[in-house]
Amino acid sequence: MSSSTTNSRFDPTFTDQVVNAMGPKTPERARVILGSLIRHIHDFAREVELTPAEWMTGVEFINSIGAISTPIRNEGHRICDVIGLESLVDEIANKIVTEQGLSPTSNVILGPFWSPNAPFRALGDSIIQDPLPNGRVTYMHGRLTDMETGKPIAGAVLDIWQASANAKYDFQDPEQSENNLRGKFRSNANGEFYWYCYHPTAYSLPTDGPAGVLLNLMDRSPMRPAHIHLMITHPEYATVINQIYPSTDPHLEIDSVFAVKDDLVVDFKPKTDDPKAELDLEYNVRMAQKKHHPHPNSEPPKSSFERSMGANKL
Amino acid sequence: MSSSTTNSRFDPTFTDQVVNAMGPKTPERARVILGSLIRHIHDFAREVELTPAEWMTGVEFINSIGAISTPIRNEGHRICDVIGLESLVDEIANKIVTEQGLSPTSNVILGPFWSPNAPFRALGDSIIQDPLPNGRVTYMHGRLTDMETGKPIAGAVLDIWQASANAKYDFQDPEQSENNLRGKFRSNANGEFYWYCYHPTAYSLPTDGPAGVLLNLMDRSPMRPAHIHLMITHPEYATVINQIYPSTDPHLEIDSVFAVKDDLVVDFKPKTDDPKAELDLEYNVRMAQKKHHPHPNSEPPKSSFERSMGANKL
Repeated sequence: MSSSTTNSRFDPTFTDQVVNAMGPKTPERARVILGSLIRHIHDFAREVELTPAEWMTGVEFINSIGAISTPIRNEGHRICDVIGLESLVDEIANKIVTEQGLSPTSNVILGPFWSPNAPFRALGDSIIQDPLPNGRVTYMHGRLTDMETGKPIAGAVLDIWQASANAKYDFQDPEQSENNLRGKFRSNANGEFYWYCYHPTAYSLPTDGPAGVLLNLMDRSPMRPAHIHLMITHPEYATVINQIYPSTDPHLEIDSVFAVKDDLVVDFKPKTDDPKAELDLEYNVRMAQKKHHPHPNSEPPKSSFERSMGANKL
Repeated sequence: MSSSTTNSRFDPTFTDQVVNAMGPKTPERARVILGSLIRHIHDFAREVELTPAEWMTGVEFINSIGAISTPIRNEGHRICDVIGLESLVDEIANKIVTEQGLSPTSNVILGPFWSPNAPFRALGDSIIQDPLPNGRVTYMHGRLTDMETGKPIAGAVLDIWQASANAKYDFQDPEQSENNLRGKFRSNANGEFYWYCYHPTAYSLPTDGPAGVLLNLMDRSPMRPAHIHLMITHPEYATVINQIYPSTDPHLEIDSVFAVKDDLVVDFKPKTDDPKAELDLEYNVRMAQKKHHPHPNSEPPKSSFERSMGANKL
């Protein structure tokens, strides 16, 4: 594992002294996590010979994260996204590869905008409650199959959410009704699902806070490629939480939160046989039985919205 | 340097992808610091296989640091102290060892309570403006010498600050007048200094915020050993910022901020020849010429008090 003596000019016992200060009542998992974290932070400081002024800049940056956060603005979550940490934690938690090399459709990060309140809708319904003139209505449809047997998966719950054509989610925008562009659907006996939604719209992370400061310092774009969020659950299958991206989006290579994977890039096609939609999107999902999940009983992450429900109802 | 592939189950290119996302306008020092920090954070997450729930606990902890911080309460600074980071940064910045193996009196952390406003006082004066009945008045005296030549150092400024006998600093306690238990003195032609102060009083870090949560999780004491702060400056010598600790203090081995060094532990002795003091403390300081300092032109760190002066005068 990591070395505590990156630079021998410095007291080689100091990091051990800090880690070993943990008392006997420290829970074992906390000891492992905090021990590793303290070692890495110390190694980082020695490696770059962090100066007092640089350290204090970091202190003030950390303080600024919590200062701007609210029950519906989780800047700590956003900073983690910008440094790829949520994406990495998602991979660690959810990556599935069987001994035969089979993998289900990729997972990516939940993000901060999932809501537990999305209503069930009937297959074929639209999630567009508040139409916008520039919204491009899309007929989205596909099939859930078992990645090993190819058999259809019936009765799965598909929870979809997306920003509107103005690039805002319902709870960022007082003009949208609650659960606009959110909905839960059940796959039918053939594993099929279908509904109306919008072609997604690219948007920028909020840049008026620490994430903006950090992205600017790193000379990076705050843009996310346009995407539709999906959470697909079934009692016998590992949950799929992901996002799908139009193949034409110019931000696929510079996603500010590192959540694009090749199998999640999809093609929207013109639709001519349906007065209700101008675009067609076929998207099929391969799922893995729960036994293949590295942590089959782990709970999905909670969104800040969900966590704040008790505290601050919108 | 650190490895990005601690665990080969995970995409070995991911961390490089995040680090290399920094654009060409990233300042070179920021690229070095952020690159190392991102690598260490990713390595930490892979090493402990950080779960989404654990990660989210960390996110909320980070948010809580800034939420409780104010211009006069820097919880980010305090968290760094608790994990030994300020002490480490101080060592990196200020450790002096000559080729002959000579070192000056040790530096330790500034802490959050230094003020730039301490008044100059005459040698022999007292810094006790607001006496407390249980305060034990101490006649503190000593001599500054060049660590190589042993010659006295005249005209150095000794800035001293300490908590009162109730364990509070002036700006934590509305009962104390401004600059109570603070003062600046100049060493005389013989390098000598002398004044009246209190025997210091041990105190707990504030435990009503994230530092308390972290210390409790780590089963550690929030206590700091009793100490007197000193900052000694002279145009030709490397600044000494340190703290001195009574050898009888029971918290020397468990200092919550890892700032005790052997040469800073001192003996208070009974004083019988002075009606103004019950204790005597002799403390001599060896200083290094600036040429020996690894960063001779570096500025001392700024206290949160100093940084907040413009924002929120007390």
